[in-house]
Amino acid sequence: MLEELKAEVLRAHQEFVKKGLVTLTWGNCSAIDRERGLVVIKPSGVDYDKLVLRDLVVVDLNGKVVEGKLIPSSDTATHLYIYKHFPNVKSIIHTHSTYATSWAQSGLDLPLYGTTHADAFNGPIPNTRNLTDEEVKGNYELNTGKVIVETFEERNLDYTAIPGVLVRNHGPFVWGPSVNDALENAITLETISKMAVLTRIINPEAPTAPESLLEKHYKRKHGKDAYYGQKKKDE
Amino acid sequence: MLEELKAEVLRAHQEFVKKGLVTLTWGNCSAIDRERGLVVIKPSGVDYDKLVLRDLVVVDLNGKVVEGKLIPSSDTATHLYIYKHFPNVKSIIHTHSTYATSWAQSGLDLPLYGTTHADAFNGPIPNTRNLTDEEVKGNYELNTGKVIVETFEERNLDYTAIPGVLVRNHGPFVWGPSVNDALENAITLETISKMAVLTRIINPEAPTAPESLLEKHYKRKHGKDAYYGQKKKDE
Amino acid sequence: MLEELKAEVLRAHQEFVKKGLVTLTWGNCSAIDRERGLVVIKPSGVDYDKLVLRDLVVVDLNGKVVEGKLIPSSDTATHLYIYKHFPNVKSIIHTHSTYATSWAQSGLDLPLYGTTHADAFNGPIPNTRNLTDEEVKGNYELNTGKVIVETFEERNLDYTAIPGVLVRNHGPFVWGPSVNDALENAITLETISKMAVLTRIINPEAPTAPESLLEKHYKRKHGKDAYYGQKKKDE
Amino acid sequence: MLEELKAEVLRAHQEFVKKGLVTLTWGNCSAIDRERGLVVIKPSGVDYDKLVLRDLVVVDLNGKVVEGKLIPSSDTATHLYIYKHFPNVKSIIHTHSTYATSWAQSGLDLPLYGTTHADAFNGPIPNTRNLTDEEVKGNYELNTGKVIVETFEERNLDYTAIPGVLVRNHGPFVWGPSVNDALENAITLETISKMAVLTRIINPEAPTAPESLLEKHYKRKHGKDAYYGQKKKDE
Repeated sequence: MLEELKAEVLRAHQEFVKKGLVTLTWGNCSAIDRERGLVVIKPSGVDYDKLVLRDLVVVDLNGKVVEGKLIPSSDTATHLYIYKHFPNVKSIIHTHSTYATSWAQSGLDLPLYGTTHADAFNGPIPNTRNLTDEEVKGNYELNTGKVIVETFEERNLDYTAIPGVLVRNHGPFVWGPSVNDALENAITLETISKMAVLTRIINPEAPTAPESLLEKHYKRKHGKDAYYGQKKKDE
Repeated sequence: MLEELKAEVLRAHQEFVKKGLVTLTWGNCSAIDRERGLVVIKPSGVDYDKLVLRDLVVVDLNGKVVEGKLIPSSDTATHLYIYKHFPNVKSIIHTHSTYATSWAQSGLDLPLYGTTHADAFNGPIPNTRNLTDEEVKGNYELNTGKVIVETFEERNLDYTAIPGVLVRNHGPFVWGPSVNDALENAITLETISKMAVLTRIINPEAPTAPESLLEKHYKRKHGKDAYYGQKKKDE
Repeated sequence: MLEELKAEVLRAHQEFVKKGLVTLTWGNCSAIDRERGLVVIKPSGVDYDKLVLRDLVVVDLNGKVVEGKLIPSSDTATHLYIYKHFPNVKSIIHTHSTYATSWAQSGLDLPLYGTTHADAFNGPIPNTRNLTDEEVKGNYELNTGKVIVETFEERNLDYTAIPGVLVRNHGPFVWGPSVNDALENAITLETISKMAVLTRIINPEAPTAPESLLEKHYKRKHGKDAYYGQKKKDE
Repeated sequence: MLEELKAEVLRAHQEFVKKGLVTLTWGNCSAIDRERGLVVIKPSGVDYDKLVLRDLVVVDLNGKVVEGKLIPSSDTATHLYIYKHFPNVKSIIHTHSTYATSWAQSGLDLPLYGTTHADAFNGPIPNTRNLTDEEVKGNYELNTGKVIVETFEERNLDYTAIPGVLVRNHGPFVWGPSVNDALENAITLETISKMAVLTRIINPEAPTAPESLLEKHYKRKHGKDAYYGQKKKDE
């Protein structure tokens, strides 16, 4: 079942390796079929170069395995919580990519220093608060999802305009309206994380980009007045 | 039309990938046929590994598409403004290469720390001022071209001796008297941007290179007394 | 003899190159057959791309060559001392991988900034004291083993929970209950060493991760309540 | 003539690319036949992937071309001066490798932070003084050779124990008793330059390695009591 979605999810994992986003087995992608309420996700701890279509696990929104012989990713509960609370998300990617993870570890939001960032994320990438000891000792992966959603709600951020988050002391989660969008957001987040480290080294006082530039660049690529790229067939 | 020029422009985009200058679709090359007043440029948002000769777009100096079925790069107006005001420029390259973009984001000029820099750029690489809110909200890409030209005029810099610029909060534009020169300048700018970050880490007080060394190295490669490389056939 | 163990050790050296852990010939792997008291180890100074199965040397725990025509790694005495004093170690890897070696040179322990670290090492990676001049001039490689074991004993650290060490001014040694575990620990140590450098650049005041998170992540992967990955066949 | 030496020199240039030591055409290798007083060197400005055996130029110690149709490297006078004054040097390599060049630009000697450095270079790598304006405007490349030799003489350094130098605001020159030794020294210098940048970031107060460790490591690999690697056939 969900063979097309599985093919997209499998390809995303193969791209993780090509784009240098993953080390060992530290990264997973999922995608949801909203009509059927089913999620395709990576099995836990399987090497990317051995991963094949039939290894992918299908779970329902309660985490029950509907298809597949392997145990789903240990991060499944985090993915499911995001799908339930962010209704426009079609695909989620979690990695421990080096630069984004270092920002997550730093405890700071990723500042918006330029148009590379603004083209994909319409503001700084938020860094979540730490989980409490109780949240960690309890249903840890579920609580990771909760703190992500809480971060967007409490700061009044739009998860469709800022499609990613840094989970404190852990690493990045990104998402999008398609597997390919989530993948591009993962790649972009890692790249702008590196640029922001370098910008900070060159000039610790570097100002963030002016508001007007951010708005312009984000709207070049998103929304009804977008003019970057070719017109989509269905537009 | 302009098949030879198109072949050079296509090859430049392929080299972007090989040399690690681009992520996703963040980079474009153009070249001008000065006699005919026509410019070959990348289509907007097309993957480099799918780009073929017939995808390249030909526009006139007013931006009107003369040949090609795809929409030209969203940065076309910037390229055209540079061609109009820098008459010796034959080819322009814009990327978001990691280190040069970080310098652009830093708000600082790229200092001339050594001969690697001096061999290609006869002085620090200027960082433009920010566009005003009005310039951003108006014809943004045209105004990006204007601020580039303004930077060279106001600082009294020679665009043939310093064939590149850092657009504040955005990224680098480089150019040259041929597509290959522009490509080498793009590669050199990224490399010296990395070296300058490292030099600054090692010794925040590192002095820039003495004037005489810069002049010597630039003249080894450029002008009538150049003695680097093999003699060109037409000399 | 020990052909299976040799095949694993050979593969580890090939992975060193693929994963970018080694330069020139700076890295070696060994593995022990505890029942027979024999250790398979890399010959000294041989290129990884020329290394074949029959080049691997078999030594006993006194360092006597039992099989093989080449001279064993100059670090053999260090490996043997670790095997004698850390009875649950099956395989040891020593490299001069860039980031871990830089931490070794810094004189500081590698701080535990996040879950990437906590998944494999249940605490900061200790940096040994310097060898004394007498220890260096005497049996240097044996004394390197001694200072490693001393570090774990004096600080009351569990070598099975923190399977690696930074030898001051030298580089990392890691180990594990299998060749593959040692290899994964070598890869992980290099990655978290890079992340920790970046974390420190981004935020010199970045706090280390809370105790509860570390315990949770380590136990997700290790011990009887582990739930990361697929169930092993023999469980 | 000198076909064997040419083959070694050609291979060194091919290794430059594989090991990431060069950008564009920024690096050259030469080797000397001491008995005949002839030097094989790269032609100026030729791409590494187009370089073939017959392109290599043979010059005598006065710089006169003895064989070859291309113009020799613009750095030839520097190489020849080193061969004349450092009689045990058989091969010289000059690159603009990123990390070593950044140290050259920093104006500081490369500190000896650990055994990776000590295995190949028995002390800090010296940074030359700046050339005077007169030296730059005069016979620049010859004067670059002179300032290298001067650095070793004035500081009383042994060029066989420290087979490399950082030319201020320019880049590294390394050498050795064979082409392969020079190549390994070039690779090692770039690696330890990177490690030293990182060590300094992690701990700006990191002490350099103790004298006894350096002596031990250097002697493990060099001189009559060396015990690293396999015994050479001719020993």
